[in-house]
Amino acid sequence: MTRTMATIGTKWKPIIIYTIGKKKVRFGIIHAKMGIISKKVLTEQLKELEEDGIVMREAFNEVPPRVEYSLTQKGLELLPILNMLTRWNQKHNPAPSNQKPR
Amino acid sequence: MTRTMATIGTKWKPIIIYTIGKKKVRFGIIHAKMGIISKKVLTEQLKELEEDGIVMREAFNEVPPRVEYSLTQKGLELLPILNMLTRWNQKHNPAPSNQKPR
Repeated sequence: MTRTMATIGTKWKPIIIYTIGKKKVRFGIIHAKMGIISKKVLTEQLKELEEDGIVMREAFNEVPPRVEYSLTQKGLELLPILNMLTRWNQKHNPAPSNQKPR
Repeated sequence: MTRTMATIGTKWKPIIIYTIGKKKVRFGIIHAKMGIISKKVLTEQLKELEEDGIVMREAFNEVPPRVEYSLTQKGLELLPILNMLTRWNQKHNPAPSNQKPR
């Protein structure tokens, strides 16, 4: 997935969308699943995705506070497109770990 | 198309791929169709797309020299995916000119 996006010029957002998928996910889980993204950058990207109506943020008034992210309908409709991109990438770049990163 | 890519975090490459489409296109035509991209950046992006096996460059030994770009099979297989992205964008952002650019 990362390699697909590097090839066609995207950055973090498609990977964040893909990571959230059809679930409700806490910030820490997204961060852990995504690997090398910094918390600062992930926070900024999630905020932009929320502003663009792709991601929904729910804050629960609990102790400790809990914040969950999920995809909106608009965001969910991106998932099959990102799946197509992943299949395209797997077909054409079957061994991404052997390729130099851009 | 530009707005789609801004939203999901891509930059020029998907637009270049979309602009070339199924045709053989000269550099100057791609540059003219794409609008505000600089020739320097377009040259760099085309070179990277060529290195990634998405774009094919053909130089003809003519006076004046002629260089044409087309999509490889790998590149052509991205077109339906980019079309899906465009439709997604048109559905969810029907009036992109009214939205502030990021």
